Amino acid sequence: MAHVPAIVAPSADAPLEIGTVDRRAVGAHDVRIAIDWAGICHSDIHTVRGDWGPQHYPLTVGHEIAGHVVEVGDAVTRFSVGDRVGVGCMVNSCGECENCRAGEEQYCERGNTGTYGAVDRDGTITQGGYSTEIVVTESFVLRVPESLPYERVAPLLCAGITTYSPLRHWKAGPGSRVAVIGLGGLGHMAVKQAVAMGAEVTVLSQSLSKRDDGLAMGARDYFATSDPATFETLARSFDLIINTVSAPLDLAQYFGLLTLNGTFVSVGAPPEPMPVQVFSLFMNRRSFAGSSIGGIRETQEMLDFCAEHDVAPDVEVITAQQVNEAWNRVLRSDVRYRFVIDVASLREQAAPTA
Amino acid sequence: MAHVPAIVAPSADAPLEIGTVDRRAVGAHDVRIAIDWAGICHSDIHTVRGDWGPQHYPLTVGHEIAGHVVEVGDAVTRFSVGDRVGVGCMVNSCGECENCRAGEEQYCERGNTGTYGAVDRDGTITQGGYSTEIVVTESFVLRVPESLPYERVAPLLCAGITTYSPLRHWKAGPGSRVAVIGLGGLGHMAVKQAVAMGAEVTVLSQSLSKRDDGLAMGARDYFATSDPATFETLARSFDLIINTVSAPLDLAQYFGLLTLNGTFVSVGAPPEPMPVQVFSLFMNRRSFAGSSIGGIRETQEMLDFCAEHDVAPDVEVITAQQVNEAWNRVLRSDVRYRFVIDVASLREQAAPTA
Repeated sequence: MAHVPAIVAPSADAPLEIGTVDRRAVGAHDVRIAIDWAGICHSDIHTVRGDWGPQHYPLTVGHEIAGHVVEVGDAVTRFSVGDRVGVGCMVNSCGECENCRAGEEQYCERGNTGTYGAVDRDGTITQGGYSTEIVVTESFVLRVPESLPYERVAPLLCAGITTYSPLRHWKAGPGSRVAVIGLGGLGHMAVKQAVAMGAEVTVLSQSLSKRDDGLAMGARDYFATSDPATFETLARSFDLIINTVSAPLDLAQYFGLLTLNGTFVSVGAPPEPMPVQVFSLFMNRRSFAGSSIGGIRETQEMLDFCAEHDVAPDVEVITAQQVNEAWNRVLRSDVRYRFVIDVASLREQAAPTA
Repeated sequence: MAHVPAIVAPSADAPLEIGTVDRRAVGAHDVRIAIDWAGICHSDIHTVRGDWGPQHYPLTVGHEIAGHVVEVGDAVTRFSVGDRVGVGCMVNSCGECENCRAGEEQYCERGNTGTYGAVDRDGTITQGGYSTEIVVTESFVLRVPESLPYERVAPLLCAGITTYSPLRHWKAGPGSRVAVIGLGGLGHMAVKQAVAMGAEVTVLSQSLSKRDDGLAMGARDYFATSDPATFETLARSFDLIINTVSAPLDLAQYFGLLTLNGTFVSVGAPPEPMPVQVFSLFMNRRSFAGSSIGGIRETQEMLDFCAEHDVAPDVEVITAQQVNEAWNRVLRSDVRYRFVIDVASLREQAAPTA
C-alpha cells in the first residue's frame, strides 16, 4: 500500500483539493504506472456531483491516463519499466462471460470495474487518474505508441475510444457519409477519426461558432442545428450519425437525416428517457443505437490507428492548481477541446509521501 | 375503365358493404388480375377507421392479394394470361430515387403508392384487394410459386414480407437466437420463417394461451411477458428481437434481452411516441430499429423461399359476407392467424357489371 498525491473530491459539492489516495501493493499481474498526463472528462464531474448515483468520498476521478511504467509484478509479461502506457475507463472485468471472452470487456455481463468510484475486487473503491501513480492489472493497460504526442494521448483513452468504436462497428470508411453531432471533446475526436478512416464528414453543431475548427479537422461540411433549414437540406444524407451530446434531442428530426439502413448512434445521453416515434424508424429501415467506450483490444487498435494517421485530440494543458477552474469551463463547454492535467505540477506541489 | 365488384367502406364508421370500384383500362405495362384470395390485415381497419389520417370514401382496402392474370398490356414481358400472381402493399413508386434504384421501393424517397387509399399517378385514389379484379403495373406484380397452397398465399404479401425482410436484413440463420414478440398474423409468419432460416426461435407473448401453436410452428421456447421472471430468465439471450405488436412496450425491459450487438426491430408501432432510456442501448451496443414491408425483388425472394421451405400462414377462409364479423374478430385478436376472403363469394353475389 502506498499513499500518493492526488486531486481529491471531498464531497459532491466541495471544490477539488490536493491530497492523497491509497494504491495497492504491486501484485504478480500488476503494473505500477507513474502518471504524466490526466485528461478531464465531463463524466468526472457528473460522477463527483452525484448525477449518476451516490459516491464514496473522498474520491479521485480521471479515466484518461497516460504515464510510464515504474514497476511490474512477477507475472507481468507484456510491459517493462519505462514503457509508455495508458489506462482508460475500466481497470478490470470478470474475464469469463461471453462479452469478456469476445474482447468486449466494456460490456462485461457482471459489470466492468470502472477506473474510479467502483468497487474493486478487494472491496476498496477504485481511485482515478488525477494522481501521480496508479496500479493496474496488466490486461487493462494499453501500450502508447511513441509517435503520438505524449501530452495529447490521455483523452484518447476515453473520448478517443468512445468515438472510434462505433465508427468501426458501423463501418465508417471511404464512401460512407458520417455526421457528428456536437464538436466537443468526443465530437472533435469523431471528426478526426472518421476523416482518417476515409469517410465524408459533416459536423452538426448548435451554432457555426466552431466551424473553422471543424473544417480544419477535415470535415467537409458544417451545419447549425439551430437553423431549421439544416434538416431539410440534409434529409437522407448520412449513413451514420454519431451523437456526442448529452442534451435531449428531437430524435425524429435527426432520424430524418439518415439514408437507407442508416444508424444514429448515441455515445452521449441525457439521464431522462427521450420519446421515440417508432414510425420515424420505419422509413429507410433506420436504427437507433448506443455504444459505450470499447474493449481493451479495440482500444489498443485505436491508439495504433491514431498513431498511424496522426490523429490526436486538441488539448489545453493545465496544472493541478487549475483543475477547479477547468471543471467550470467544461461545464460551460468552454474548452478546445479537452483539458489535460500536467501531473508534474501535482508531483511538485505535493509533499513527499510514502 | 371497368366497374368491378368490391367490398367497400362507405365511411370511417359504417360497416363494410358490397358495391363496386373502378379499375383503369389496361395500359401497355399493366396486368389485369382476377383476384381469388384477399387477406385481411389490421392495417385495413386502421386505415378505414381513420387512425392513420383522413381518407377518401368510399374506399376498398386490402393489400394481400392472390389471383391470376386475365389480361396483359402490349409492353408486358414478364406475365402471361393464366399466371398465378400476387400484389402486396404498394403498386408503384418513383423508380428513380436512390432507394428505388436499390430495389427498396418501399422506402421510395417520394413515397411509394400504397395499394389502397393513396393518390395514384393519374390522380385517382387507389383501391385495394377486397375486390374481384385489380389492374397493376407489371413491375409491382409478384409471381406466385405453384407449390404454395393457393388459399394461403395472400397474407405473405404483407405479413410475410414484413417479417421476412428484417429477418434477412439482420441475418437470422443457423446459430442466431431470435425472439418474436406477439403470435398474431405477423408474429406467426416471423416464427415460421425464422425457423425455416435455421434460427433458434423463442416466442414472447402476453400469455401462454397459444403456446402449443407456437411450438408446433417450430419455436424452441415460449414465454409469457406477463410474468416478470421472463425478463430475468431471458436476459441477454437474443441476437434479434422482432416486435410485431403495436401496443406500447416497456422498451428497456426488452432491450435487456439482447445480447452483444443485438437488435430490437419493430414492425408494429403505437401511434404515440415511446420513451427510450438511451443508457439502456449503451449496454451491449444495442440497436432499436424499424422495418417496413420489403422491396419487390425481396418480396419475390420471400415467396420463393416460402415455397421452397413449405412456409405458409395459417388462415381462416371466410366469405365476403363475413368480413365485418372478421374485422371485429381481428380487433379482438381472435384469429389463428390470418383471415383470407374467398373472392369467389364476392364474384357470385355481385350483380354482373361492366
